Amino acid sequence: MSLTIYGDSISGNCLKVKWVAERLSLPFRWIEVDILKGESRTPEFLARNPAGQVPMVILDDGRALAQSNAIMVYLAEGSDLIPADAYDRARMFEWMFWEQYSHEPYVAVARFHVKYLGKAVAELEPRIVERGAAALARLEAALTGTTYLVGDRLSLADIALVAYTRMAHDGGFNLADYPATLAWVRRVEAALPIGDPA
Amino acid sequence: MSLTIYGDSISGNCLKVKWVAERLSLPFRWIEVDILKGESRTPEFLARNPAGQVPMVILDDGRALAQSNAIMVYLAEGSDLIPADAYDRARMFEWMFWEQYSHEPYVAVARFHVKYLGKAVAELEPRIVERGAAALARLEAALTGTTYLVGDRLSLADIALVAYTRMAHDGGFNLADYPATLAWVRRVEAALPIGDPA
Repeated sequence: MSLTIYGDSISGNCLKVKWVAERLSLPFRWIEVDILKGESRTPEFLARNPAGQVPMVILDDGRALAQSNAIMVYLAEGSDLIPADAYDRARMFEWMFWEQYSHEPYVAVARFHVKYLGKAVAELEPRIVERGAAALARLEAALTGTTYLVGDRLSLADIALVAYTRMAHDGGFNLADYPATLAWVRRVEAALPIGDPA
Repeated sequence: MSLTIYGDSISGNCLKVKWVAERLSLPFRWIEVDILKGESRTPEFLARNPAGQVPMVILDDGRALAQSNAIMVYLAEGSDLIPADAYDRARMFEWMFWEQYSHEPYVAVARFHVKYLGKAVAELEPRIVERGAAALARLEAALTGTTYLVGDRLSLADIALVAYTRMAHDGGFNLADYPATLAWVRRVEAALPIGDPA
């Protein structure tokens, strides 16, 4: 497989795709797209991904694919990152859709506002702070007493959720308040493996 | 398969699951959960779905599954609602993740604020109106000249996106401005089949 990943290195959504490619030993080329400079909104980029978002990948036949979690599923089909059991697989998807709806819009957006737009944590919309904390509390409950989110091995659910959870401190959340989650973050980082928190 | 769907009939996310079960002739029991009365936040409900959201299904072995799009994938596995081709299947997932991230939080939320919380369209947050319109514009571009979102047949991508697009007028969007989308809505409604707009 010849794979080109268009991504911004500051984006957890983009890093997810990179980690899956690395974990599965899929050779890829990484093309840096600076979202803060609007590089995902140029006419050339929009022609390939009308959503104007990274990550986007170009497959070996030149076709494009977007949405971090959809790309991960495509790359990981047939690998041990997707559970073979139908119910476990469904639970993996449940976590991945929940991540995009109930976790990323708060935990990642808080980080973006603080780290890249220069807001103070105290200036964040209360709704973002509350819902981010609720997402982390739900993860903490799910991870207490378990090693991975689904079944007993690493899956795309862990990779999807670890991406911004490991950087939650950038948005003012304190992972020390979520000890099972913090231990899981370190476990998933070691399993992938991925380096120091961005 | 014995299937129990916990859902609120006013919720497009819940109706998606019902439509897939009906389309695939899967027998199911529907248990109405009134989200406006907080029935998805009771201790009993949260014990089954800690996210406190509908839809949730209980499978024949008593296990629970949540997230509308994850439930649809589980129910439709092996059916013609999921494309057999790997790239088409990936595109289906791309649309489904995009729906939850870039469409539902605006098109469905605008409707909820207007129809169920009593806001005027003019009082909606500009961000919701702008992003909802952007989502509909993207759908319109994708649907111009094509019959379905992925390949040449109905898939879960259409069902996921039609759920709130068909009710967009409730949130102040005018589908007459999006003629290819409106024609696709009527086509998908007829294919499922589903009744009058809620």
